Amino acid sequence: MTQSTERVQLPPAARDLFEGPNFVTMATIDPDGRPQLSVVWAKLDGGDLLVSTIKGRKKYANLSRDARASALVFAADDPYRYAEIRGTVTLTDDPAAELINELALKYTGQPFGDRPGEERVIVRIVPDRVVVYLD
Amino acid sequence: MTQSTERVQLPPAARDLFEGPNFVTMATIDPDGRPQLSVVWAKLDGGDLLVSTIKGRKKYANLSRDARASALVFAADDPYRYAEIRGTVTLTDDPAAELINELALKYTGQPFGDRPGEERVIVRIVPDRVVVYLD
Repeated sequence: MTQSTERVQLPPAARDLFEGPNFVTMATIDPDGRPQLSVVWAKLDGGDLLVSTIKGRKKYANLSRDARASALVFAADDPYRYAEIRGTVTLTDDPAAELINELALKYTGQPFGDRPGEERVIVRIVPDRVVVYLD
Repeated sequence: MTQSTERVQLPPAARDLFEGPNFVTMATIDPDGRPQLSVVWAKLDGGDLLVSTIKGRKKYANLSRDARASALVFAADDPYRYAEIRGTVTLTDDPAAELINELALKYTGQPFGDRPGEERVIVRIVPDRVVVYLD
């Protein structure tokens, strides 16, 4: 598979995995070049993947410096089916915390609620590479 | 938390997560510096994490060039509990495919069986940084 920096379409199997309430492992790049991993909630917006973070988190510092990110999702009931996307991120302030509330509804069925002091940011991953593994 | 390149001990919560049959997301570094993610079986050997791969896979090529890797595990029944390790990898040929059979027993209860033509390699991650998240 060749690399590209153009936006790519998500195949249906990848869409299914990201649309389900499956937990996503996201990788950013540390200052020394090492991958930094964390578990996140995520949802699709068209062909982009949206993740919520907070200013001050390692993820936010890394993405502010190097906008490249990868995200992997597997099916909770079948980890042998998984999809990985790589892409470039844009960061947008989310002062009303709208995204984290949407994500909380998707994953827990409940709103996230107010958390004063958290400066929420929308992480939009525009994929330029998608790999899907099916068992 | 400061970074270190000395081996670190795994806290009990991280040991529990890696000892269980929980799927692990492993990150290696692509030639262009981007994180490459895949889902793997893994087991502990003392304080090291062992993963099996095959010569020819992207993971193997990446680790042969840059030995730094990260691995994240979350509990299948509680993804809010997770552990991330970062470390340096050594690669050892496994011509008898012993590790992949041990891993198959751990995760499926069945031996992996013979797969002629696969050149199995043991990926040993010696952690120098561990982060544990508990909900």
